[in-house]
Amino acid sequence: MSFINIPKDCDFTLANIPFGIFSTSANPTRRPCTAIGTQILDLSSPFLSKALKADNAANICDALQSTTLNAFAALGKPARVAVRNAVLELVKTDSQWQGEVERTLVPMSDATMHLPMEIGDYTDFYAGLNHAFNIGTLFRGPANALQPNYTHLPVGYHGRASTVVVSGTPIRRPLGQTCPPTNSTPNFDACKRLDIELELACYISLPNEMGERVDIDDAGEHIFGYSLMNDWSARDVQAWEYVPLGPFNAKNFGTTVGAWIVTDEALGGFRTRGLDGRGTVLLPYLKEKDEGKGVFDVTLDVFVKPNGKEGFSKVFATNAKNLLFSFSQMVAHHTVTGCAMRTGDLLGSGTISGTDKTSVGSFLEANKNGKEEVDVGSGVGRMWLEDGDEVVLRGYAGDGDKRVGFGECAGVILPAKWGRLERVQGQAKQV
Amino acid sequence: MSFINIPKDCDFTLANIPFGIFSTSANPTRRPCTAIGTQILDLSSPFLSKALKADNAANICDALQSTTLNAFAALGKPARVAVRNAVLELVKTDSQWQGEVERTLVPMSDATMHLPMEIGDYTDFYAGLNHAFNIGTLFRGPANALQPNYTHLPVGYHGRASTVVVSGTPIRRPLGQTCPPTNSTPNFDACKRLDIELELACYISLPNEMGERVDIDDAGEHIFGYSLMNDWSARDVQAWEYVPLGPFNAKNFGTTVGAWIVTDEALGGFRTRGLDGRGTVLLPYLKEKDEGKGVFDVTLDVFVKPNGKEGFSKVFATNAKNLLFSFSQMVAHHTVTGCAMRTGDLLGSGTISGTDKTSVGSFLEANKNGKEEVDVGSGVGRMWLEDGDEVVLRGYAGDGDKRVGFGECAGVILPAKWGRLERVQGQAKQV
Ligand SMILES: [Ca+2]
Ligand SMILES: [Ca+2]
Ligand SMILES: [Mg+2]
Ligand SMILES: [Mg+2]
Ligand code: NI
Repeated sequence: MSFINIPKDCDFTLANIPFGIFSTSANPTRRPCTAIGTQILDLSSPFLSKALKADNAANICDALQSTTLNAFAALGKPARVAVRNAVLELVKTDSQWQGEVERTLVPMSDATMHLPMEIGDYTDFYAGLNHAFNIGTLFRGPANALQPNYTHLPVGYHGRASTVVVSGTPIRRPLGQTCPPTNSTPNFDACKRLDIELELACYISLPNEMGERVDIDDAGEHIFGYSLMNDWSARDVQAWEYVPLGPFNAKNFGTTVGAWIVTDEALGGFRTRGLDGRGTVLLPYLKEKDEGKGVFDVTLDVFVKPNGKEGFSKVFATNAKNLLFSFSQMVAHHTVTGCAMRTGDLLGSGTISGTDKTSVGSFLEANKNGKEEVDVGSGVGRMWLEDGDEVVLRGYAGDGDKRVGFGECAGVILPAKWGRLERVQGQAKQV
Repeated sequence: MSFINIPKDCDFTLANIPFGIFSTSANPTRRPCTAIGTQILDLSSPFLSKALKADNAANICDALQSTTLNAFAALGKPARVAVRNAVLELVKTDSQWQGEVERTLVPMSDATMHLPMEIGDYTDFYAGLNHAFNIGTLFRGPANALQPNYTHLPVGYHGRASTVVVSGTPIRRPLGQTCPPTNSTPNFDACKRLDIELELACYISLPNEMGERVDIDDAGEHIFGYSLMNDWSARDVQAWEYVPLGPFNAKNFGTTVGAWIVTDEALGGFRTRGLDGRGTVLLPYLKEKDEGKGVFDVTLDVFVKPNGKEGFSKVFATNAKNLLFSFSQMVAHHTVTGCAMRTGDLLGSGTISGTDKTSVGSFLEANKNGKEEVDVGSGVGRMWLEDGDEVVLRGYAGDGDKRVGFGECAGVILPAKWGRLERVQGQAKQV
């Protein structure tokens, strides 16, 4: 119990204690924080040291005098646990530090949240088997939906780190080349098939040197925590550009992460079994000691507020357990070549979908590749996102005072910016 | 003319003045430098300010008190030109600063070179049309060698920035999954088809904000300079993993860049026409004002010293003009979505190949996908790289006292590191 009020159905109970970076108009310096109820607790405050029980307490406090969480994350799990425990001491009912803490609390509504980590490299996986199957079925039919490698390794690709932004940052509709099947030469236009991808992501804590790998048994120690992620996608750009080297401009215009990083200390109790690998026997480097605990039972919801309407409606609802591979398996696979990971690196899970039309993580699946409009509430149907549409992802596990939530991962679509460029209509295919 | 001796056939004439980062055992602090003859000139030395003619001379000198070239590159072309001109004043015959300069010169053999830029994101393009055609022909035949998008846009993908290393850094053979056509389940083994990719690369100077783009007419202003690059590639890993999202572990174990960044001030005189786009009319955002000057007439050579042998032999020889798209076109395409570029971002050209067997930039092309051994000198044939093999890329334009060279881009292959993992032979395909 805490002297801080925690409303019903709040993401930020005492079971959570997530990490983020905030600033205020009174103090614009970015600094580490946690969230309790609707309040933000400044972790760069001097009182933290009073409750911190760790041999390296001074190092930890130093690491928290920073504009990102990287230095803190690099100290690994013991530091994370020590700060968590210190926070619980500071805010508990009858805490000896109640007065001090109360004077520094900032209501969330008065805080600006920032990108929590400096991201060296961002990798996006494709471990949502139902999503991969849904997409593969649309383009190749159910028999060939999954590629032969799919159940043997976590398929992934390198993403663009420079455009990973924190929840709330507007996303500008990209311009690009598209080439519909009726064209013989490409169009140049604003993206007409703007989509979301609902993902969970993790950040790296302990780095590994180039030429070394992170063993699957140690991978958990290299993960700082988890966040919501929206991998905005330009489907028409992607369809034309992606052969043979994968998605590029279709993804590089923006990826939104939640402001809060939720740790394994909070989520560990919600570990569960992931999707079935259809009989594939995994190679030893991908075998987890406890195969039944690889993923998280986290409810994931997608809300949309169509341009010009008042309220958000829940459009899709799924669960983070819909993954074939765990983040530990992703880390082990990514580094098995000797690929170096740095503190702050971001790994996306891939789109997370269930098996029916409303339990998906993208419009592409729900609209059957542009064939069926999706009900986005407020009496509106949408094939793809329009300018002014707002999307909010939410995720949480548990309930009551044990609820552990991610806050929101939000973005609004800005109209394309043309500058001196103009729309070009390519040539029609001769028939 | 300079009081510094410049040997015959030297890459580092007064026409060059490249930029790099060095340290010495006497002074292990990394700092900016240029190369003249076989000497290194420390650009963090106080005497630079004496010869520097620029309104922002103090800013420039500050930016050069740094362990990377990022701060200097961010000042753009005027600062680059001012430093170039100052260097030429400092080292000219009868320079008033000769004594001071001579006391600070360091022989290259006494210097350690470091990664010149802090790289935020690394993108690898695929603009070597002959290479794409050679590879496409091997896998799909000449009629379908190039994908429909190939001549319309510079195909590219995001690479791994954390494992970009400077020339001379050893490269460890990666472990990974492979699945030869005779297998029904994958093997786990050390890469057996380790290859190089000979590329030219550029670094970004001026950044652009997310949501903005760099116009093709301005793209040159956003490029700091050019470097050699070896995109080491695990072909057997790539063949199994790359569908449908592109190369990932096949590339993330290491990418080597040359230590020297050669500027447009040095290379501009060698601009020439790139490869023909087979009649494709480019969209306006990719059209250059001067279409005949997009690429560089730079001789590119690949030398190999097989494990246990004494000398290097020239194995492949080609030219950097074998590109369908210029770096300006790559920048314009990459940012047309509003993708932010940061100072220090690295863009690879894609493998550069000519049209015959010895003018290629990879073993994959020369050995016809593992069918014909390649003569690597010293009486040795190689299908792919073996442990202990050393590869050196070199590149230069012009000759005599106008020669502009890149130095070398070198790496040696270390044996795979197994740790507790073991080789696994997958199941054979039932026939
Ligand atoms: Ca994705
Ligand atoms: Ca390449
Ligand atoms: Mg994205
Ligand atoms: Mg590479
Ligand atoms: Ni990156």
